[in-house]
Amino acid sequence: MSPVTDAPNATAAPKADDAASLAAITNDEIFAGHLGGKLSVELAAPLETQRDLSIAYTPGVAQVSRAIAEDPALTKTYTWTDRLVVVVSDGTAVLGLGDIGPRASLPVMEGKAALFKKFAGLNSIPLVLDTTDPDEIVQTLIHLRPSFGAVNLEDISAPRCFEIERRVIEALDCPVMHDDQHGTAIVVLAALKGAAAVQGRDMSGLKVVVSGAGAAGVACANILIAAGVPDVVVLDSKGIVSAGRDGLNGVKADLAARSNPRGLTGGPADALAGADVFLGLSAGTIPEELIASMAPEAIVFAMSNPDPEIHPDVAAKYVAIVATGRSDFPNQINNVLAFPGVFKGALDAGARRITEGMKVAAANAIFGVVADELAVDKIIPSPLDPRVAPAVAEAVAEAARAEGVA
Amino acid sequence: MSPVTDAPNATAAPKADDAASLAAITNDEIFAGHLGGKLSVELAAPLETQRDLSIAYTPGVAQVSRAIAEDPALTKTYTWTDRLVVVVSDGTAVLGLGDIGPRASLPVMEGKAALFKKFAGLNSIPLVLDTTDPDEIVQTLIHLRPSFGAVNLEDISAPRCFEIERRVIEALDCPVMHDDQHGTAIVVLAALKGAAAVQGRDMSGLKVVVSGAGAAGVACANILIAAGVPDVVVLDSKGIVSAGRDGLNGVKADLAARSNPRGLTGGPADALAGADVFLGLSAGTIPEELIASMAPEAIVFAMSNPDPEIHPDVAAKYVAIVATGRSDFPNQINNVLAFPGVFKGALDAGARRITEGMKVAAANAIFGVVADELAVDKIIPSPLDPRVAPAVAEAVAEAARAEGVA
Repeated sequence: MSPVTDAPNATAAPKADDAASLAAITNDEIFAGHLGGKLSVELAAPLETQRDLSIAYTPGVAQVSRAIAEDPALTKTYTWTDRLVVVVSDGTAVLGLGDIGPRASLPVMEGKAALFKKFAGLNSIPLVLDTTDPDEIVQTLIHLRPSFGAVNLEDISAPRCFEIERRVIEALDCPVMHDDQHGTAIVVLAALKGAAAVQGRDMSGLKVVVSGAGAAGVACANILIAAGVPDVVVLDSKGIVSAGRDGLNGVKADLAARSNPRGLTGGPADALAGADVFLGLSAGTIPEELIASMAPEAIVFAMSNPDPEIHPDVAAKYVAIVATGRSDFPNQINNVLAFPGVFKGALDAGARRITEGMKVAAANAIFGVVADELAVDKIIPSPLDPRVAPAVAEAVAEAARAEGVA
Repeated sequence: MSPVTDAPNATAAPKADDAASLAAITNDEIFAGHLGGKLSVELAAPLETQRDLSIAYTPGVAQVSRAIAEDPALTKTYTWTDRLVVVVSDGTAVLGLGDIGPRASLPVMEGKAALFKKFAGLNSIPLVLDTTDPDEIVQTLIHLRPSFGAVNLEDISAPRCFEIERRVIEALDCPVMHDDQHGTAIVVLAALKGAAAVQGRDMSGLKVVVSGAGAAGVACANILIAAGVPDVVVLDSKGIVSAGRDGLNGVKADLAARSNPRGLTGGPADALAGADVFLGLSAGTIPEELIASMAPEAIVFAMSNPDPEIHPDVAAKYVAIVATGRSDFPNQINNVLAFPGVFKGALDAGARRITEGMKVAAANAIFGVVADELAVDKIIPSPLDPRVAPAVAEAVAEAARAEGVA
């Protein structure tokens, strides 16, 4: 039986030879698309004349600086920082490539920044860090605090990502979210709502197996438990995360205490027998016979990229609904459905943080966009659906105000 | 007699009621020009289709990340960082406003970033720091090193700016320049070359008085001495910086050892009697009778903004050539003549640092643009002259290669 690994970010990364997902796109096209980087800083207004210069720069700018010095709240109005999300990574868990370092992570972070502009109209820049020390990462962001409006932590390895996110949230008075955790969890919750709705089932009755106890797996388990799914069982490379197991780290011990209500032990076969939902958030594979052992009308989200834990056509022989992270199959589960709208909503509302309620509101909004269009092969909107980010932003902003963090 | 102060950055900042330099520009216009900030991050290529996404983001991006992981030198080719200048400030010496903090400095830093794009086509973002501790500032930039291609230090108070610049240069393998020092010095050297050429004089015979021993004053004294002007006398708030004076800090003691070859002591009157050149780089004023005491055919650069150390019309009664920092008088001395081209040239050449030779080359190039057009009221190009930045960039790149730092 193939072991399930703890790959922290299963929603990404191809292999160079993955012909299927790169069909008809050549290497040359890919590298040409990244030449010189994917971002450009432009002037919001022209600087052509001496008069333009006198307004935007000296001497005019001094009046704006003086006004902010007198009332720091004006920073939001008269600088770009209130609409600026920094995408922060140390390059330790990049796509499925792992710890490739900050420089090699840059093309991914630039892409992420581009998606913030494309889907939410937010400015975004990558800040990649030449340190993996949590103290230094947190301190760097504290020192830079006046430079931005929100922090998207990205591709930081587990379990460091949990501590780093917690400490950055505690230290900064602005929206902070590790997208590999919560972006994934939001979209998975939305998709599971969609799948359950298609089947006319209540989510609270589903037996869910989460394969992977890295950033995404832990966050998905948490959001499902918070959303009222009591029977969640988490698998890592050593099998079922259970309360009595030796050597659990703090995050997994906490998870064990809150999940696995039937007290299962053992491996993937023990977890999947009779389960209703399989959530693949590792870089591993899952044998066909284990999928066959699931309950009738089962749901499989095989989100490892580019190679799902089980090929969707194979899974479809045994289960009712299949989703993957891939664009060339139906039901693509992609974080871009969540993060642009989540940050836009948080910044629109002036939120000081991103709460669990805001994340659930985001999932409900994603679900809501296709609630009237649901089908077995459409449990979630397309990543390019332009209705999603505005709907998510509005729901998140409303939740922020309702929860008193705005 | 008015004391000369040590205001570190004399080339800027109006007062709110400075009607002359803000003529016909209302407060409303100024604040409207800064609404939402002055910068926007845009996509270098469209992200419209699933195919675009597959190239720019997953799965295509992983191939680029993998290539950089194998050969970090490819970071320059396939990310934006090689053309990205970070404008870094702690907000301790902003324009003539002083220590107004990082948030209030942001409108200035955004303006600077906009000028980098406008004049040199470089991407630039402000990074303002919520710390004034040199260790923390240096460490923050070390941690962020993979995120950018060059560092423009800005509006950091003296004498901290000297230590911070030195340590950042030592720590990072990329172009670093504190513009308040060296940008100002480059432009002053170019303007003094222009003035001397108009008069048919040799710079090396000029007796120069530098008023102000902050960032700009020290750097101007240094570049002039390096350029072969032996008789430079520096004034600070306590008078002439001379070797025997009590309580000199390290920077001033060093300056005293290399300047003031005639061993002058005393105040502005002692320095200016018989001097050929007055460089005003403080926020102070200089009495008319002291300008009158200068040598025949004297040169006055009264660069304090918005109020020059002496009104140019008053100075012109006694001296042959007058320059200021103001756009509403001839001979405007403005750093924008230097920094865009200096950084472009350094990045074009792949320079690991910005040397004294590159700074002198920049000054020569600025002078060269108007060498055939020189006049008493045109000793230096206009800040909007589009010929300047390309000429500076080419000269700086050539100097970088000649000096072996590229």
